Amino acid sequence: MGWNSWDCYGASVTEETVRANAAYMAEHLKQYGWEYVVVDIQWYEPKATTHEYNAFTELCMDEYSRLIPAPNRFPSSEGGKGFGPLAEYVHSLGLKFGIHIMRGIPRQAVHRNTKILGTDRTAREVAKTNSICAWNTDMYGVDPDREGAKEYYESLFELYASWGVDFVKCDDIARELPHEESELILLSNALHHCKREMVLSLSPGPALLEKAELYKQYAQMWRITDDFWDHWESLYDMFERCEKWCIHSGPGHWPDADMLPVGAIRQDYDPDNRTKFTEDEQKTMMTLWCIFRAPLMIGGELTKLDPFTKELLTNSEILAMDREARHARQVWRRRSEDTEFVVWSAERSTGGTYIGLFNIGEKEGTVTLPFTDLEMYGTYGVKELWSGKEIAPAGELTVDLPKHGCAAFLTL
Amino acid sequence: MGWNSWDCYGASVTEETVRANAAYMAEHLKQYGWEYVVVDIQWYEPKATTHEYNAFTELCMDEYSRLIPAPNRFPSSEGGKGFGPLAEYVHSLGLKFGIHIMRGIPRQAVHRNTKILGTDRTAREVAKTNSICAWNTDMYGVDPDREGAKEYYESLFELYASWGVDFVKCDDIARELPHEESELILLSNALHHCKREMVLSLSPGPALLEKAELYKQYAQMWRITDDFWDHWESLYDMFERCEKWCIHSGPGHWPDADMLPVGAIRQDYDPDNRTKFTEDEQKTMMTLWCIFRAPLMIGGELTKLDPFTKELLTNSEILAMDREARHARQVWRRRSEDTEFVVWSAERSTGGTYIGLFNIGEKEGTVTLPFTDLEMYGTYGVKELWSGKEIAPAGELTVDLPKHGCAAFLTL
Amino acid sequence: MGWNSWDCYGASVTEETVRANAAYMAEHLKQYGWEYVVVDIQWYEPKATTHEYNAFTELCMDEYSRLIPAPNRFPSSEGGKGFGPLAEYVHSLGLKFGIHIMRGIPRQAVHRNTKILGTDRTAREVAKTNSICAWNTDMYGVDPDREGAKEYYESLFELYASWGVDFVKCDDIARELPHEESELILLSNALHHCKREMVLSLSPGPALLEKAELYKQYAQMWRITDDFWDHWESLYDMFERCEKWCIHSGPGHWPDADMLPVGAIRQDYDPDNRTKFTEDEQKTMMTLWCIFRAPLMIGGELTKLDPFTKELLTNSEILAMDREARHARQVWRRRSEDTEFVVWSAERSTGGTYIGLFNIGEKEGTVTLPFTDLEMYGTYGVKELWSGKEIAPAGELTVDLPKHGCAAFLTL
Amino acid sequence: MGWNSWDCYGASVTEETVRANAAYMAEHLKQYGWEYVVVDIQWYEPKATTHEYNAFTELCMDEYSRLIPAPNRFPSSEGGKGFGPLAEYVHSLGLKFGIHIMRGIPRQAVHRNTKILGTDRTAREVAKTNSICAWNTDMYGVDPDREGAKEYYESLFELYASWGVDFVKCDDIARELPHEESELILLSNALHHCKREMVLSLSPGPALLEKAELYKQYAQMWRITDDFWDHWESLYDMFERCEKWCIHSGPGHWPDADMLPVGAIRQDYDPDNRTKFTEDEQKTMMTLWCIFRAPLMIGGELTKLDPFTKELLTNSEILAMDREARHARQVWRRRSEDTEFVVWSAERSTGGTYIGLFNIGEKEGTVTLPFTDLEMYGTYGVKELWSGKEIAPAGELTVDLPKHGCAAFLTL
Repeated sequence: MGWNSWDCYGASVTEETVRANAAYMAEHLKQYGWEYVVVDIQWYEPKATTHEYNAFTELCMDEYSRLIPAPNRFPSSEGGKGFGPLAEYVHSLGLKFGIHIMRGIPRQAVHRNTKILGTDRTAREVAKTNSICAWNTDMYGVDPDREGAKEYYESLFELYASWGVDFVKCDDIARELPHEESELILLSNALHHCKREMVLSLSPGPALLEKAELYKQYAQMWRITDDFWDHWESLYDMFERCEKWCIHSGPGHWPDADMLPVGAIRQDYDPDNRTKFTEDEQKTMMTLWCIFRAPLMIGGELTKLDPFTKELLTNSEILAMDREARHARQVWRRRSEDTEFVVWSAERSTGGTYIGLFNIGEKEGTVTLPFTDLEMYGTYGVKELWSGKEIAPAGELTVDLPKHGCAAFLTL
Repeated sequence: MGWNSWDCYGASVTEETVRANAAYMAEHLKQYGWEYVVVDIQWYEPKATTHEYNAFTELCMDEYSRLIPAPNRFPSSEGGKGFGPLAEYVHSLGLKFGIHIMRGIPRQAVHRNTKILGTDRTAREVAKTNSICAWNTDMYGVDPDREGAKEYYESLFELYASWGVDFVKCDDIARELPHEESELILLSNALHHCKREMVLSLSPGPALLEKAELYKQYAQMWRITDDFWDHWESLYDMFERCEKWCIHSGPGHWPDADMLPVGAIRQDYDPDNRTKFTEDEQKTMMTLWCIFRAPLMIGGELTKLDPFTKELLTNSEILAMDREARHARQVWRRRSEDTEFVVWSAERSTGGTYIGLFNIGEKEGTVTLPFTDLEMYGTYGVKELWSGKEIAPAGELTVDLPKHGCAAFLTL
Repeated sequence: MGWNSWDCYGASVTEETVRANAAYMAEHLKQYGWEYVVVDIQWYEPKATTHEYNAFTELCMDEYSRLIPAPNRFPSSEGGKGFGPLAEYVHSLGLKFGIHIMRGIPRQAVHRNTKILGTDRTAREVAKTNSICAWNTDMYGVDPDREGAKEYYESLFELYASWGVDFVKCDDIARELPHEESELILLSNALHHCKREMVLSLSPGPALLEKAELYKQYAQMWRITDDFWDHWESLYDMFERCEKWCIHSGPGHWPDADMLPVGAIRQDYDPDNRTKFTEDEQKTMMTLWCIFRAPLMIGGELTKLDPFTKELLTNSEILAMDREARHARQVWRRRSEDTEFVVWSAERSTGGTYIGLFNIGEKEGTVTLPFTDLEMYGTYGVKELWSGKEIAPAGELTVDLPKHGCAAFLTL
Repeated sequence: MGWNSWDCYGASVTEETVRANAAYMAEHLKQYGWEYVVVDIQWYEPKATTHEYNAFTELCMDEYSRLIPAPNRFPSSEGGKGFGPLAEYVHSLGLKFGIHIMRGIPRQAVHRNTKILGTDRTAREVAKTNSICAWNTDMYGVDPDREGAKEYYESLFELYASWGVDFVKCDDIARELPHEESELILLSNALHHCKREMVLSLSPGPALLEKAELYKQYAQMWRITDDFWDHWESLYDMFERCEKWCIHSGPGHWPDADMLPVGAIRQDYDPDNRTKFTEDEQKTMMTLWCIFRAPLMIGGELTKLDPFTKELLTNSEILAMDREARHARQVWRRRSEDTEFVVWSAERSTGGTYIGLFNIGEKEGTVTLPFTDLEMYGTYGVKELWSGKEIAPAGELTVDLPKHGCAAFLTL
């Protein structure tokens, strides 16, 4: 659970903003379990201003081919201190600090043929000749078969460890498998080699279902979708993605449904931008993410949180579901004459059953769930977690749901 | 749970054999939960002698285009009594009676243009012109859009209900979807129309994963594999099939891993034939079927059950797992240097956790499962269900497994 | 070059009509090279009335499982004379006689288990169990591996030879390759076994380009398209089909672009029906068919030939191109700003070069062809074959063409 | 017809070698029609030594982002003279001069952000962000939509024109279509803009058959195969490639079957290397290339030509076929019991018919070609072009052919 700068600032977030969001989180959200503060892509790019990348541009880099924060955007990094001071600040608030990286080695290091720490090999010698990212020109892939490749990645994670990084979101590496499989293994091993515990999060998606066991072994999170934004179609599709991935969720390995694009997003384009999701859609998203136990990363600017969004993100019983659910699965999905319903269920580790009812069709409607569909054969009372209302024991659950709306229950 | 004639007699089972197996089941197996006795394919074919089908041969049929038992093979059916007397006998033993049917209407009815009960339409008028089975020449598909199609299927199930049938295995209908989707719906509706409760089991497989919701709504069981025989490769493949289908298992809708080819099978070719599965492989099969909660149908001749096979089929704790498991799923699957391990887990509805450890590689090996992989964070004692041995509480479970072998645990 | 009953009468042509068309051809078209009179599909079906097939209906058949003309539609066949008298009549006019057959053996023969001439095998024993036509219920495929299969096909062609058949259009056999490849070889060998020379024409298309050498060896004609009707889209597509197949055209092996749907077609639905092709489109069709050297089969009712259509079909210089062209190929195909042009060229076996210019776009336009594109490096005079107009020698050819129109040239 | 440095020197040819081969060609081969001398890939790479490319290495480049010859390998280029002096020398011998280029703009130009002649745009601004070659790291693709892209390509061809280049082999552009289609059009237009006539040859293959019209319009040659080396399998495959492409051969547009790997090839690895093709295979290759009218480029070191190879390359009648053949096509291809035969035929523009008979199976055998298969209906005498032997007039041609051998005929 945390905050990530991408949805509101793209490639252009600054230290000032990160500090402000961290401070807000410490004061208002930490008590609900929110703790990671993550600086997303291109913190090493001095000229970045939006979500668009400048092609082939000059990047800030140390003498060992490692990218470092752009001092004009992260002043505390001046003098070779990197993200050390910023991480220290975040830690001082009782929070954790994360960064985004791109798979590979900077192209400018390769073309300048700069050194690799702890080896007499150079950037040119470890780069993979035909491995590039399809949408960003910063890096070449690293060829795991080359001498110096291992040392390069180890030098990277040692640097991040020295800064105090707790979370690394590595990009250009999940959707590309199995092509880049050996580079993922090299990178993951290098991370473990540095001794500091860091969460490894893989991006972008959709990850490959047939590679589930690989992700489980080498990463803690992996994206099951391309960038998720505030479009209903993407949320609708997420139901099928979650259905397919649910059995791969467990301790230390979490399919990742991407950030929550709520509140004030796309701030680099216009400070007035707000999510286009309706309130019902946002509740549907939170309920699905939590019963599926997806990692939760807030996409919106925290200092501009409106009351609805704040409530959405601080409902203790919904957030408990993200921690306490076990064996979540889609029970069924059916088109009724007028709309389409989905039922999810999960066990609560401390007892009881979670139930998510979703109306993902285009009309309001009434859905009935016999408890026998959950292999529960008596009568059950339930509490609705968004409203707090309780329903008296019965053999089935009947609920009216608006279009794109949901209800989340826990048996009493 | 039951017995089916296919694995030992193919298309050629006789009444005498069915009665003998039913009697054996009532005396020796019923107490463990075994109850269905199912007559498989072509009971209407007077000349059938093996698993091979005679092409275009004469079938026993009533005047309304409905197939009836061949009196030379099922003497009690003489005089239009159909399976009534045999079902009555099975019921008298406290057991249930099932039959196999092929989707469609007999080709001989179509070419003779015989009547359909309760309508002035004929067989020729309801047959679908280009719908045939790829491996059997008995039937044409029925075109749901034709007048008389509904009446034909209703007349079928009324006949089966009048006989006292409890279970209908319908063939040539699962793998062919979505092509034959509307015929499945027509058939399922006709079954419900007849008022007698009958289990509807769809065959052959592999059924289509993307049609899971359809099977759930219109059938109780559907095959997730082609005919399953005693080859290790098929059992190896079943692990992946079960992984994919596990979330679709639940009350009233069961993915079906096919019969258990154990004991004396292929009796129509040679009475000395026995399963080629090793004992370890048979335990692996039973453990997977039961933790996955697959329907259990014995394929071997019951009157020839050897001691090992009888024990295999009457282990109360393993069979309890088939009833009590919930939310079963593959936890992980990994190649170690020398072999390949799979871990399954499920909750027991009355408390506790089931764990299946499988060595599906080609060498013996030792597998370790930290309980944290199951989100169980303390120490746990377990009982191995095949041997009855208990293991003292610990934070992980370490087991030596022979090639193709398994262990099944329940936490204490 | 001939006439075929399909385009005007579907499955329902009668002897009277065939005789009338033959008589017309002998009197008015024979002198231009037209000579085959072909009775298309289901002449053995007494109840056929249109292009739609009656499913599973009774067919006229002899005691040896061979279909024979329905006497109510072909009265001269009465008394076991088959098509003998009709063929004799056609021959008496100096023309040749052809029939259509379906691959395989009648389903009614299989289900009645009738005999096969010259063997003690039966229809049931030679039928292939899972080989049917997708759009017609008359036949089962024949399994070449069965004893009696060869004898069945030989008995068929002996019957046709005894009737005096000169041309056999075999259906359900070209598009289905390689599935039915061995049945084609069996059938072709049986045809040659009967000693009478008959053209073997395969249908329906599109035939498979990668099987070109097979068709060349076992048939004289094969359809490169599904049924071709009077829709511009189909004619447009034919340019690409002809481009791909042109190198496979030669003596004794002709890719077949299907019938010419001109004049009075679909007469079984309405005697007022006429082709929907414009005059320009019909000329484009004739020009392409003739430069490509496709077999020419008139689809319209001959006795209703209007003056335009008659001229279209009797232009001696265009028809000469169908005989005299060699090495025809598409020279180029280009989209211009407003429309799309295609150039074909072929050598004339007796000297000179044929050129076809086509405007297959949606606007009129002017096309220029430098003779150097044909590897002709001087200046050339040409004659336009539809109009007879000559153009003085020049280094290129420039022509205005209406939408869907063409011009055909021969160098002087 | 010419010589290309790739097969013998890979990326490492030197001026001295080019001059020696040009001198040899002028003295010994020019009289047979050989005239182009082509410097293949990476003449701008000072460290190249073999067929392997150094990754990300420094390239010789002018201030306008244009690659120039490496002076250590091409001394006459010193002082900004480029290939001018070498081209002048080749022209002085009465021959023509060609170079190889890679599609795109040097990566080092992009990362150094160098200028583009005649515009205030820079290399960085015209590079396409995700377009690289799969096997060489020299270039980025150029994005035709960027300002400066057109000017960049025009500046390239103006430079080549100023040097006196007659032939440009552009690499990384044929197989990649349609992806790089717009870059091909941009490049081709830039070539025509420079006014000097240069042949444009596209590489590598296999080119896409469905893009034939595009190649015809924008290039003179395009490779129909990946790099062709001295392996029989590749030569065997070429028969099918030629069959498919034959109709697209004509004046100004030639499908290219790649170089002739004959004589002393792979000289950069070992001066003793010689082609692995047998003499029969080399004749088969020459016969196919010439009847198909493929461009002919010698791959072997000319100064080491052995007597067999020299004869192979200077057979006047075979070479005449490369110029005089028209409408070449595969007549048929058949497996006989023991081997496999292919027949090609073409018209000679000045009269007569060329015939190629090939045994591409693994045993010697006898092939018979009735002249009627070529639509030639009388008796014909022929001359075999390799041996000069004449065969008396007959209705068919019967020849014994060794494994992988051929015969080439011209009718008398």
